[in-house]
Amino acid sequence: MERSSGMQNNGGCFSRGCGWIKSLPERSKAKIVECARKIKKLGQDDPRRVNHSVKVGLAITLVSLFYYFEPLYDGFGDSAMWAVMTVVVVFEFSVGATLGRGLNRGLATFLAGALGFGAHRLATLSGEKGEPMLLGLFVFLLATTVTFVRFFPRMKARYDYGLLIFILTFCLISVSGYRDDEVLDMAHKRVSTILIGGLTAVLVCICICPVWAGDDLHNLAATNIEKLGIFLEHFGVEFFRKPGEGESINKASLQGYKSVLNSKNMEESLVNFARWEPGHGQFKFRHPWKHYLKFGSLTRQCAYRVEALNGYLNSDIKTPPEIQGMIQDSCTKMSSELGKALKELALAIKRMTPPSSASSHLVKSKNAAKNLKFLLYSDLCSGINLLEVVPAVTVTSLLFEVISCTEKIAEAIHELASLAQFENVEQERPKLPEQGEMQQGANMDVHHHVVTIDQPPPVKPQNGSLSSSTTS
Amino acid sequence: MERSSGMQNNGGCFSRGCGWIKSLPERSKAKIVECARKIKKLGQDDPRRVNHSVKVGLAITLVSLFYYFEPLYDGFGDSAMWAVMTVVVVFEFSVGATLGRGLNRGLATFLAGALGFGAHRLATLSGEKGEPMLLGLFVFLLATTVTFVRFFPRMKARYDYGLLIFILTFCLISVSGYRDDEVLDMAHKRVSTILIGGLTAVLVCICICPVWAGDDLHNLAATNIEKLGIFLEHFGVEFFRKPGEGESINKASLQGYKSVLNSKNMEESLVNFARWEPGHGQFKFRHPWKHYLKFGSLTRQCAYRVEALNGYLNSDIKTPPEIQGMIQDSCTKMSSELGKALKELALAIKRMTPPSSASSHLVKSKNAAKNLKFLLYSDLCSGINLLEVVPAVTVTSLLFEVISCTEKIAEAIHELASLAQFENVEQERPKLPEQGEMQQGANMDVHHHVVTIDQPPPVKPQNGSLSSSTTS
Repeated sequence: MERSSGMQNNGGCFSRGCGWIKSLPERSKAKIVECARKIKKLGQDDPRRVNHSVKVGLAITLVSLFYYFEPLYDGFGDSAMWAVMTVVVVFEFSVGATLGRGLNRGLATFLAGALGFGAHRLATLSGEKGEPMLLGLFVFLLATTVTFVRFFPRMKARYDYGLLIFILTFCLISVSGYRDDEVLDMAHKRVSTILIGGLTAVLVCICICPVWAGDDLHNLAATNIEKLGIFLEHFGVEFFRKPGEGESINKASLQGYKSVLNSKNMEESLVNFARWEPGHGQFKFRHPWKHYLKFGSLTRQCAYRVEALNGYLNSDIKTPPEIQGMIQDSCTKMSSELGKALKELALAIKRMTPPSSASSHLVKSKNAAKNLKFLLYSDLCSGINLLEVVPAVTVTSLLFEVISCTEKIAEAIHELASLAQFENVEQERPKLPEQGEMQQGANMDVHHHVVTIDQPPPVKPQNGSLSSSTTS
Repeated sequence: MERSSGMQNNGGCFSRGCGWIKSLPERSKAKIVECARKIKKLGQDDPRRVNHSVKVGLAITLVSLFYYFEPLYDGFGDSAMWAVMTVVVVFEFSVGATLGRGLNRGLATFLAGALGFGAHRLATLSGEKGEPMLLGLFVFLLATTVTFVRFFPRMKARYDYGLLIFILTFCLISVSGYRDDEVLDMAHKRVSTILIGGLTAVLVCICICPVWAGDDLHNLAATNIEKLGIFLEHFGVEFFRKPGEGESINKASLQGYKSVLNSKNMEESLVNFARWEPGHGQFKFRHPWKHYLKFGSLTRQCAYRVEALNGYLNSDIKTPPEIQGMIQDSCTKMSSELGKALKELALAIKRMTPPSSASSHLVKSKNAAKNLKFLLYSDLCSGINLLEVVPAVTVTSLLFEVISCTEKIAEAIHELASLAQFENVEQERPKLPEQGEMQQGANMDVHHHVVTIDQPPPVKPQNGSLSSSTTS
């Protein structure tokens, strides 16, 4: 009995095994197809990735020519491998990142090489027994100190890699010197091969389809504002739409703003990279890159409000008809004009022109807000059930907040336009009311608001080099 | 005239120069004091930074002993520098990060060394002229492919460094092999010195005051929830406080939640590091680290609402007394109980116990919400000016949203407690109503809500190893 069950078991295992092996080609095929699809998608999402990969392959192949050609190899010998290493570790996706790493590596190697040579010389003075002890002490002190310096946020942001290489080179030069007397020759070879490797990486990175971190940052700023605009443009209609009524807009396009909420780290690293980049395209050297952080922060402030608004899109509480009738038009207008204003602001950033047409939408949106406030203030409601008006009132209030956020964004873009000397920046621009005017004291002066489209003296760009104080 | 003005100028320059030189010591002193203050603060903020720096110095000094002792040096020769290099680049702040880098580097070096050796052998078969061309082709293809693979988000998160080292080692071994016939010896030395360096780094990192990324992640999750709790605990009182009335709470402590808004990247990298760590302290190997991402996302959802609430703290619009009288008690209660619930949840995470006491606060907060809804629903207001109730209604509505967020957080913590087998997890826990019940359909069943404290069957932890499906 036992044996037959064992045989059955074996038979079961065997047939399962056979099935598994038979299904292997199919499953492998499915996996390969899935993998190919992923690779294709990755390449299609950003074709620059394929370019970058080919560029890295090319730069490494170029620099490994050192080994293949006798005359080149004779000069450097085994040190040629530092050139290959440098290309591999320095070559990054964007020009700014590559330049930053290259400069960090080059400068740190040079300084640490010199210091290591000095330490080696000092140690040899202390006799055969004292030398290793003194060297050990130097290495310990330097490594400890520089590792601590890496914790300073400003150092971490820009010079982290350089500090690492500083420790590395100092240790290599000073410690190797204990065994190898030709330490100066070694230091010299290390510095020059690293220069060659770094230069190869930087040249290939800049000359073949360059990817500028500055462009990416600029586009990110514009796209983030645009995503908020798309949400707000459709929010009003969606909020008041009855179920089953009319065409619903594609929900996915409304949710695009979610990526704005977590954009801070990406923005910060792009700013750090962009600051290493030379002038290119529309951007001059010392373009006010740091200003984009201000933008980003304001855009996120707005995105937090939009996220709160999003929570009311599918609210089950129905607004009573008399209240809906009172606020629907103004709310929809306010939201859609805000959306248009934000989209215009995004376009202005993309085109690098002052955002003049955005102001008119902003003014319209603020007029709608004022009308609404007037209605809410003067139409004393009777017999209303406060619970039923909760979502509508909340949405209205959040929209008022979004208006004040959008004003701040517009102000920051005007500032950028003047700092970076966008075209036509000297044109007149409608006066933007002071920050928070909408929100604060809204009930005191609700009757006296008059839309002012005065022309203040245009903001004059500074002479000479731009905004050196902001970017330095 | 010109000359005297020139002399005057010179004199001016000279006296200014003298002044500058005289003030130099003072200014230097001020700068040094400022710098020392910064260093002290950096060390005091997190004393583990000082430990880490000393540990790095120690590990490098240890590994450089290879050079000083004849018998050790004879075995490896110049390759000993790979050990020093490995320590410098592998030693990271937390154990998880160091282990991740060490394993990546070790494994990648081993695999790429083998592959490079194979490529070298294959190339030598093709004759003297064919060899460099074939080698160049191999290097180009491998570098291009692996660079592209680095763009896959999952590879980037865990194996980015390994892929970099893979390219590096492959190029070094295969290309150096063209000049140096002892390529096998070289590959072997490189692998073994890297193993020695990596082991030194890992051992020093683990054995001397280890910093566990898992602990940091766990504390971050708790602290973030606590920060939201602190805000909410005081929000109600602050919102209804009349200017000049009573003691104002320290504003800075209220604003602590702002750091939660941008915590995503830090959380993600800590999760990646923690997954490399072995079991330690309260955490077993395969602790459900990935679950913390769910937490984090829910905590941020809550933080976005809190950020919106924060905008109404200094609202200039005064709520009419009759409305304030109606909602103040319930709102304050709702907010402070929410704060207490969140603080209890944070404490439960910190202590790794099931958050049973949080549930009672959550129930109290929900009761307050129900009372408030009932009041808003039944007390039909007459002759009210809607504009004046905007902030109060918005705050109420946002607090309802925060309740539903907090419920989700509590649910996620219960899940974690069962996955990670917190103590007493089998204890009865009050039933948490389904998500969104508060918000959705709130006006339909406002009269029928009964606080249910039924005991559902306790969530049973899985047998054997924990949550392998979640973390693998």
